[in-house]
Amino acid sequence: MVGGGQLARMTHEAGIPLGIRFKLLSDGPQDSAAQVVSDVVVGDYRDLETLRAFAKGCDVVTFDHEHVPTEHLRALEAEGVVIRPGADALLRAQDKGAMRDALTSIDVPCPRHRIVADPEDVAAFAAEGDAAARSASVEGGGGRREGEGFPIVLKTVRGGYDGKGVWVVHDTEEAAEPFKAGVPVLAEEKVDFVRELAANVVRSPHGQAVAYPVVESIQVDGVCDTVIAPAPNLSEELSAQAQRLALSIASELGVIGHLAVELFETRDGRILVNELAMRPHNSGHWTQDGAVTSQFANHLRAVLDLPLGDPRPRARWTVMTNVLGGDYPDMYHAYLHCMARDPALKIHMYGKDVKPGRKVGHVNTYGDDLADVRERARHAADYLRGTITE
Amino acid sequence: MVGGGQLARMTHEAGIPLGIRFKLLSDGPQDSAAQVVSDVVVGDYRDLETLRAFAKGCDVVTFDHEHVPTEHLRALEAEGVVIRPGADALLRAQDKGAMRDALTSIDVPCPRHRIVADPEDVAAFAAEGDAAARSASVEGGGGRREGEGFPIVLKTVRGGYDGKGVWVVHDTEEAAEPFKAGVPVLAEEKVDFVRELAANVVRSPHGQAVAYPVVESIQVDGVCDTVIAPAPNLSEELSAQAQRLALSIASELGVIGHLAVELFETRDGRILVNELAMRPHNSGHWTQDGAVTSQFANHLRAVLDLPLGDPRPRARWTVMTNVLGGDYPDMYHAYLHCMARDPALKIHMYGKDVKPGRKVGHVNTYGDDLADVRERARHAADYLRGTITE
Repeated sequence: MVGGGQLARMTHEAGIPLGIRFKLLSDGPQDSAAQVVSDVVVGDYRDLETLRAFAKGCDVVTFDHEHVPTEHLRALEAEGVVIRPGADALLRAQDKGAMRDALTSIDVPCPRHRIVADPEDVAAFAAEGDAAARSASVEGGGGRREGEGFPIVLKTVRGGYDGKGVWVVHDTEEAAEPFKAGVPVLAEEKVDFVRELAANVVRSPHGQAVAYPVVESIQVDGVCDTVIAPAPNLSEELSAQAQRLALSIASELGVIGHLAVELFETRDGRILVNELAMRPHNSGHWTQDGAVTSQFANHLRAVLDLPLGDPRPRARWTVMTNVLGGDYPDMYHAYLHCMARDPALKIHMYGKDVKPGRKVGHVNTYGDDLADVRERARHAADYLRGTITE
Repeated sequence: MVGGGQLARMTHEAGIPLGIRFKLLSDGPQDSAAQVVSDVVVGDYRDLETLRAFAKGCDVVTFDHEHVPTEHLRALEAEGVVIRPGADALLRAQDKGAMRDALTSIDVPCPRHRIVADPEDVAAFAAEGDAAARSASVEGGGGRREGEGFPIVLKTVRGGYDGKGVWVVHDTEEAAEPFKAGVPVLAEEKVDFVRELAANVVRSPHGQAVAYPVVESIQVDGVCDTVIAPAPNLSEELSAQAQRLALSIASELGVIGHLAVELFETRDGRILVNELAMRPHNSGHWTQDGAVTSQFANHLRAVLDLPLGDPRPRARWTVMTNVLGGDYPDMYHAYLHCMARDPALKIHMYGKDVKPGRKVGHVNTYGDDLADVRERARHAADYLRGTITE
């Protein structure tokens, strides 16, 4: 696995019972995964020679992030290295423009979007949406005004995560910022959604696929805070529609491994695709304690073309809440407190140094009473962060 | 952790989410645990210097086997190394004579036993039991005859496991074998038991303790084959008695960490202690998938003096069956078959080379229907071993 973050750490953990020899390419010897894996190569994933040497002796190469240059992936594939997901599929998780093109070409509902050239173009994109909305509305009419159709979401097509590389802009002045890096920018309508959902599926090379229950994902400041499995009060129809959509994306894009499809549930009862991730994903961490087979185990089973494991839930409700670093670098006493207060709490720490706002772990709770299950996860995450003292 | 076997491998796996920096002393670099642990020292656990160097930088030293010489443990403790369980407690798991003495001194019911000097002494031990049985019986009477009181169980006091170092002898001639190694031999009555049970408990330095449900353990040829959790048709009274007994042994002997108490359930409804193990134990492997907190996680939490995790079961029934090596060294295709046949099967492989009869992994199954749960585990284990082809 390329990338030494917590996803690789937890994938290794899931591979131990499967008897898998796990080899890691990590930026540094103290990265989250490098702390716990036996076979670690320290090197730069942006360097083709490093990747080539790492891939030697691997049956399959997979990833804990989307940042490996696409041209390196293609070079390795041309040399016969087995990469899963493959470069063609992975491009759609690396490049938000390519992702939107691919999804649109297979008729997947997405927010209105296009690549924009500069702030003026953003204003034009905004106005197009405003005009469309007006023409669709009985109250419509009138000429183009400055600020029409804003706010607009701007995203750098590559490299963003956890709210980084994403801006919500209200006029052309604010729209200037994303262009400063000189990289392509994608504009999207700001969807009037009631909540965010995620549909997680796993697909193997011979086409077997499994779908996890659709979850609700609650973001705070653009960062995933809490995931509830299954999404409360989601109609069977919309749930099945979201699962079918994710399975169809996996199949049409040729995804191998875990695919997370982040969705908006709109006020008028539709679902639109927000983002794709082709790897284990924060919205699937609940599966470690809440499903028969975790997303990490199924990602490994998929990329190694082993039969997939049962994705069904083990509890009525499972809640995952991320633990962010707070102002206190030493979480030890908070850790003791949380373990003592709730012996059924499932803590997953990443071995990372605590920095304010950094994801340093997550907690899972499960049970029959959703309010109680949510409260337990909330309390533990807040206590570990230091925002409450009891 | 000292010892690179599957218990250390699974303990490391359980330590990853807890954020524990796990260091291993392993006989070789390809031992089961050494394959998956980052921080491995290869060395001989019988060498005090090696142990001393290994212990440097460890907060706590614990063990995946009982074979570290007691005098080395005492030397390290004298130097301030924190060893859990400590040498005094561990001696009772290392030396079956010391174990029997300790249990008898705290009034724990055990089979009749004593250290024997030679085959003649074994005959005398057998006759004592026979005389006691006769005097207790209304049909009793008559003088001592050759073969009276046999069969007798003989055990070397140190080094035995999985049926090794244990003999069932029927006369003085057969009784000669165990003495050939020149080590002390313990004689025990052959208990007329209806089945074997195990009571697993975990105790931490500040005295917190948890008890897992009492399980039934089914042995084949002296090796654990299947564990059923909880033990079917066990009366609440006997179950509570077994748990109290195990908690009391842990407390009286000062055990820190996981304690497995192997028990005989006698025909007349009593329980007698067979063996003790002060580490994660085969009778607790079901907890990985069947309990809220696994024995491995709780062993770590105990030796690090963290609050203990919830030991309660997550399913009505959980069954563990060991996978033994068969005649085919490559289990890959059998592995595919078992995963495809039963997507809910939980496989735990140890990364060991297959040798006939060697424990190379185990499977866990769980559900509401015991017959079905047992059949699934049985089928997978037999298929992986190669004794069935479907």
